[in-house]
Amino acid sequence: MLEIIKYPAKEAWGKLTKRPQMDTKALFASTQAVLDDIRSHGDAAVREYSERFDKVSLNAFEVTDEEWAEAGALVSDELKNALRVAKKNIETFHASQKTESKWAETMPGVRCMQKATPIEKVGLYVPGGSAPLFSTVLMLAVPAIIAGCEEIVLCTPPNREGKIHPAVIVAAKLAGVKRIFKIGGIQAIGAMAYGTGSIPKVYKIFGPGNQYVTAAKQLIALEGTAIDVPAGPSEAALLADGSANAEFIASDFLSQAEHGVDSQSILATNNEQLAEAVVKAIEQQISELPREEVTRKALQNSKIVLFQTLNEAVKFINFYAPEHLVIQCENEMQIAEAIKNSGSIFIGRYTPVSMGDYASGTNHTLPTAGMATAYSGVNLDSFVKKITFQEVTAEGIQNLGPTVAVMAENEGLDAHKRSVTLRLDELREK
Amino acid sequence: MLEIIKYPAKEAWGKLTKRPQMDTKALFASTQAVLDDIRSHGDAAVREYSERFDKVSLNAFEVTDEEWAEAGALVSDELKNALRVAKKNIETFHASQKTESKWAETMPGVRCMQKATPIEKVGLYVPGGSAPLFSTVLMLAVPAIIAGCEEIVLCTPPNREGKIHPAVIVAAKLAGVKRIFKIGGIQAIGAMAYGTGSIPKVYKIFGPGNQYVTAAKQLIALEGTAIDVPAGPSEAALLADGSANAEFIASDFLSQAEHGVDSQSILATNNEQLAEAVVKAIEQQISELPREEVTRKALQNSKIVLFQTLNEAVKFINFYAPEHLVIQCENEMQIAEAIKNSGSIFIGRYTPVSMGDYASGTNHTLPTAGMATAYSGVNLDSFVKKITFQEVTAEGIQNLGPTVAVMAENEGLDAHKRSVTLRLDELREK
Repeated sequence: MLEIIKYPAKEAWGKLTKRPQMDTKALFASTQAVLDDIRSHGDAAVREYSERFDKVSLNAFEVTDEEWAEAGALVSDELKNALRVAKKNIETFHASQKTESKWAETMPGVRCMQKATPIEKVGLYVPGGSAPLFSTVLMLAVPAIIAGCEEIVLCTPPNREGKIHPAVIVAAKLAGVKRIFKIGGIQAIGAMAYGTGSIPKVYKIFGPGNQYVTAAKQLIALEGTAIDVPAGPSEAALLADGSANAEFIASDFLSQAEHGVDSQSILATNNEQLAEAVVKAIEQQISELPREEVTRKALQNSKIVLFQTLNEAVKFINFYAPEHLVIQCENEMQIAEAIKNSGSIFIGRYTPVSMGDYASGTNHTLPTAGMATAYSGVNLDSFVKKITFQEVTAEGIQNLGPTVAVMAENEGLDAHKRSVTLRLDELREK
Repeated sequence: MLEIIKYPAKEAWGKLTKRPQMDTKALFASTQAVLDDIRSHGDAAVREYSERFDKVSLNAFEVTDEEWAEAGALVSDELKNALRVAKKNIETFHASQKTESKWAETMPGVRCMQKATPIEKVGLYVPGGSAPLFSTVLMLAVPAIIAGCEEIVLCTPPNREGKIHPAVIVAAKLAGVKRIFKIGGIQAIGAMAYGTGSIPKVYKIFGPGNQYVTAAKQLIALEGTAIDVPAGPSEAALLADGSANAEFIASDFLSQAEHGVDSQSILATNNEQLAEAVVKAIEQQISELPREEVTRKALQNSKIVLFQTLNEAVKFINFYAPEHLVIQCENEMQIAEAIKNSGSIFIGRYTPVSMGDYASGTNHTLPTAGMATAYSGVNLDSFVKKITFQEVTAEGIQNLGPTVAVMAENEGLDAHKRSVTLRLDELREK
């Protein structure tokens, strides 16, 4: 049974919100060795590590025309329909994030603009494992297509027969991805970062993964390839008052916990009766779950915390900065507005985290480990960079040039000053 | 004299665009040791390293009320006026980058929103050195204030008398910064990342610096503190045709080169006469510069490259992905639209890079070393994170719940499915 932690002092919050750690730094030396090998030896090294780590030997990595063609028939109509609905919602929401670029005149004759420009080449990583993560395919590929990325490469590990799950191919096709490579782990990240004979080099790599994938992403980021955000173990906070439904809260608590043994759920509430009812509901529901063992382990990282007031619970949530936040309270919309740190917020009794994990339209690639204090989840902007433009006319440099000349001189940059005064002189002579 | 490189084959582009490297990885071990010490020993360690690296012994790090008060009188009115003009333009342009948040209904009963939320605590680093970098103060602090960051901390190294330049204080005051600490280098980055007795911990650290500062930023980023972008040596590309003024191009070429011995300028043109005229103008102008020695060294990294067509030169520029790009061509606006990779673009004969370095309104903290392929320069969004929200009604979960249940089941996440079906069951019973 989960213990209810009652009225913790502020000093105890740090310990209460401690995450199961993923120590990727310890993996850096061995991961870097694999990356270096891939940079030097390309496809041959990718092949060797696929044999060693994934126990699969492939002559060619790319999903073939035949595999693309046969995937549709191998996926149920029910799932195909669900993928279509999810894709449409993800598309609608991410398309709504488009920004317009317009010139701003900062002073007469001086105008500036910021333009969202697609990242030309992006790599999407979709982990393998026990189940096909077609949802991650949609979450990464749909915004990449909307952003206008020209070259989109998807890597995902094959099974020992050298196959990837047809649902991953169907989701990729639906989203508009044209090239999938059957490569996993460090070798996939290295192949996309450096390029090989068969895998194109990309400028930014997206997607979750285990600690080796995360370590590889961190290392190639140090070398200049951009990454989305290092993914740590998944987590959810739930904020509830006496108006919440304990069964619903328990189901959200458990759906977070089933992700993995290092997942974390934290319920913050101001209502002791609710806390007790949730503890009971968790015990009832957990025994019915096929992933009971994993889920029970994750509960060891999880907490139910009681506060004197809802306001204090909100402060605790902002301190925790959760990846996911469920709010089931009377004034839930007002509370949602007061949240300063969270990846994604789920408002109200009919908005379990699962809705956003799959199909509400928001992205499920979100900052973990407290990084929601400063990082956004993946969104349309993750697939573009903003280029700034400026155009100064003859009038503009006459207005602003003297300012720039004074500043350059005071910073000791004489050539900067002269690039302005040369032009001012020319205009004076005209 | 600079040599004109004529009609290079595509295969040679990689070598032509090679940057002077900054190998921060080699500094990781020694930098990490300093960081660890600061994490463990706080202010005492900061004090010790300030003595060792900056040859200055301070009892208190924070700029005092007296220093704030006296700074104004120590700065010329001319410079104060220039700072005011620059600040206003930077403010106008960065304020124009604000985005509205609005709910998008992705399907009946399902609505989603993305809201820009200020990063509560940010740290700004302003390097010391031979000249006071008040321009960097404005470039970092003005957007932080517009974004609504609650706690803004600025660190900059003092001189051996324990003082910082009054123009830095004046710029900070003008921008709205309330706390300045006289700390430089690795110890500044560590103090802001971990917090000490006197320096607050922040969530994101901004600003340029030498290779030690950059290494420290990369290391604290691995531990979860966000950073703007690792700064490498500065660089500019110039794209010009026969319509360009060779004197102006030469002045821009040199103003980039004077930044430091590792700076780089590259002119790409389709006009041999222009290239020759620029080479001559550079020779004439350089001998008049006080920073001639530094500038001449930087010219060794710099290139003048001739192409058969302007179109090929544009391709070369996109391949280079320059931090700054000057375009002085007949169809300059059309060409600017075709640029895929650059930090900031300067269009036309009266728009030298200096305008953006100081006062046009765009930010001068920009991606270097080819990172303009995937990174933006500092902009308003750098000081916020985007939180997503979703609200699903009873109607919404009845519409979308079955989709989510199918997807969760196929990904083997039963608790996810049940968090939905539990709610659908409740609605059915109503």
